[in-house]
Amino acid sequence: MKRSITLATILILGLQAFSLQAQELANFSFGRQRPVVSPEIQNDSVTFRLKADYATIVKLSGSWMSNPYSGSIDMTRGENNVWEVKIPLPEPEIYTYNFLVDGVAVNDPQNVLVQRDGARYLPMLMVPGERTENYGEAKLHGTVSHPWYDSEILGMSRRLSVYTPYGYEKNPKKKYPVLYLLHGAGGDEEAWISMGRAAQILDNLIEKGLAEPMIVVMPNGNPGQQAARTLNIPEKQIDRRSEKYRDAYVRSLCTEIVPFIEKNFRAIAKPESRAIAGLSMGGGHTISASILYPQLFDYICPLSAAGSATPEQLATLKKAGVKLYFLACGNSDFLFKGAEEMHAKLDGQGFKHEYFVSEGGHTWANWRLYLNTFAQKLFK
Amino acid sequence: MKRSITLATILILGLQAFSLQAQELANFSFGRQRPVVSPEIQNDSVTFRLKADYATIVKLSGSWMSNPYSGSIDMTRGENNVWEVKIPLPEPEIYTYNFLVDGVAVNDPQNVLVQRDGARYLPMLMVPGERTENYGEAKLHGTVSHPWYDSEILGMSRRLSVYTPYGYEKNPKKKYPVLYLLHGAGGDEEAWISMGRAAQILDNLIEKGLAEPMIVVMPNGNPGQQAARTLNIPEKQIDRRSEKYRDAYVRSLCTEIVPFIEKNFRAIAKPESRAIAGLSMGGGHTISASILYPQLFDYICPLSAAGSATPEQLATLKKAGVKLYFLACGNSDFLFKGAEEMHAKLDGQGFKHEYFVSEGGHTWANWRLYLNTFAQKLFK
Repeated sequence: MKRSITLATILILGLQAFSLQAQELANFSFGRQRPVVSPEIQNDSVTFRLKADYATIVKLSGSWMSNPYSGSIDMTRGENNVWEVKIPLPEPEIYTYNFLVDGVAVNDPQNVLVQRDGARYLPMLMVPGERTENYGEAKLHGTVSHPWYDSEILGMSRRLSVYTPYGYEKNPKKKYPVLYLLHGAGGDEEAWISMGRAAQILDNLIEKGLAEPMIVVMPNGNPGQQAARTLNIPEKQIDRRSEKYRDAYVRSLCTEIVPFIEKNFRAIAKPESRAIAGLSMGGGHTISASILYPQLFDYICPLSAAGSATPEQLATLKKAGVKLYFLACGNSDFLFKGAEEMHAKLDGQGFKHEYFVSEGGHTWANWRLYLNTFAQKLFK
Repeated sequence: MKRSITLATILILGLQAFSLQAQELANFSFGRQRPVVSPEIQNDSVTFRLKADYATIVKLSGSWMSNPYSGSIDMTRGENNVWEVKIPLPEPEIYTYNFLVDGVAVNDPQNVLVQRDGARYLPMLMVPGERTENYGEAKLHGTVSHPWYDSEILGMSRRLSVYTPYGYEKNPKKKYPVLYLLHGAGGDEEAWISMGRAAQILDNLIEKGLAEPMIVVMPNGNPGQQAARTLNIPEKQIDRRSEKYRDAYVRSLCTEIVPFIEKNFRAIAKPESRAIAGLSMGGGHTISASILYPQLFDYICPLSAAGSATPEQLATLKKAGVKLYFLACGNSDFLFKGAEEMHAKLDGQGFKHEYFVSEGGHTWANWRLYLNTFAQKLFK
């Protein structure tokens, strides 16, 4: 029987370049069985399904729940041991979820849409609506590339993610402004691409004429890392308090990455064509960069920022000239107090800025919203 | 208690950009508990571990097993419900594996090294040795980018993967030869990057001076697809038997992708600087391209190829001039007979070629070996 299944699999797969994996069989639908579909959005509900022949308890946990730790909900065993649960469709947003099979977190084998958050791969549920209209694929796509720059400051070659807009290849004489877009702690150079949907958001905004065509540079903000942990390169131990490494990443960004980009991409090398934005730790990096190099960026966007500036530093920055200072935070973010204080300090200096307060906390839902918002205000 | 765990998590993660996921808790190690390490290679063994509090049966299935469908092995519940199994270290190679928790395939939450095969994400085990010495990260890295080209033939914009070698950015006047590297059925433009380790293999070979610095272009060989399914773009239904779409992908490759690359990258636009190689279905595409456009490529490498050519076609190709014809197949591949026949036909034409027969079947283990082998013979 085992042998005939193996042969049947080979026949069914035809020339498919299969690797022998139990999962292949586990998720395979033979003959009369209806293929498992998950997740399935129908009108105002969404159904999740998982085939689990020998499980005792299967639960669903999702980021739309107010407390996914305790709030996971039971699924019901149905025909052919397909477990199922139908829930009201959450508000339009991108969510992540997983199943709990007898207590163990399991990804949805039917869902090819996966985000990576650090070391975790999580299935996505995208609920359509106005909020998410720029998060799906546009008709035309920019190019995402991963060049490596040599950092003397950090003593290593380091990986970047770079987005160039659709048309970059077709217009070999055109130069573009550049947004430097920074991730938070736990993230890496792929975070804005994977969880932040940065390429999709820019593709859609540019296609609709709502944003200027721009290059977006997403570095790795962890000074000991050459690249995301998925590449398995050992991390260097960096003493961030030492003189040598103080602000080392921000210095590398401003004095190594910016010149690398302006040499290797068709970037406009002027302050009015440079923007910097970052979330959480990257919001701190954004503020530091603006203070250490006040002449470099004319557009500055700290998002849910873990960082602050003194009134004196803000006065210096104001004098250097800023076209947009976009300060954003969620009203239930644990860093909201810091945003309020920064807002007051900016007011205290008569520093013209936009203060964008959204519902919710320290989440990618907010950071996607912020990018979708401030990207429309850049380089105009 | 739940609330205190959530607060503890926030404190522990500090400013980490966490999304609320049950998996985070499920895999979290508190206080005295030793963190779970998996997989752990020690001398001649490797140990796999999974924390599963409520599971009844946990098994391990891996691609090193002669039959992973029936051959999965039991793991044993240990302290803190960490299930464990220790096995003799398989021969040096890259393997994939998963756990079976009460019958459901589960990825290893401790292992950030993951391959994507079609819709499946699979944890990797890389066993060090001579066979795999070029599969890990080199010191210096080329750039992988994902540009989109407009295909008139297929009526859509389509995503490519392109590797440019380390030094490409630093030597803005240098031009490079190009290898077009094609995937098999079930694959996409990321298959050679993810499962084939193409970037690592080229980085290592170039760093060691064993291969010429070259550009490697990896298109999507499914004519109805704009991009890998992970991007969730609906597939176009293509009638491959219709006049309009006969050999449409191969025509797009040779008359659209090659010019796109030679316009947008610093490629040497000559037959002696163009190579084509492909596995399985891509081996068929390689053979078709060499027959339909005999002047285009001087290096031709069908690997475990699903395709053939007539003696007359081979005679025409021979006349056009070929610097390397590298025919490779595993001796237990279900397509081995076709390779033997092709070898005989080439011999029959007095067509100088290399016939590379390896142990094993229709596997990425073989395709990585072939790339590592023929890449050293190109453009010399």
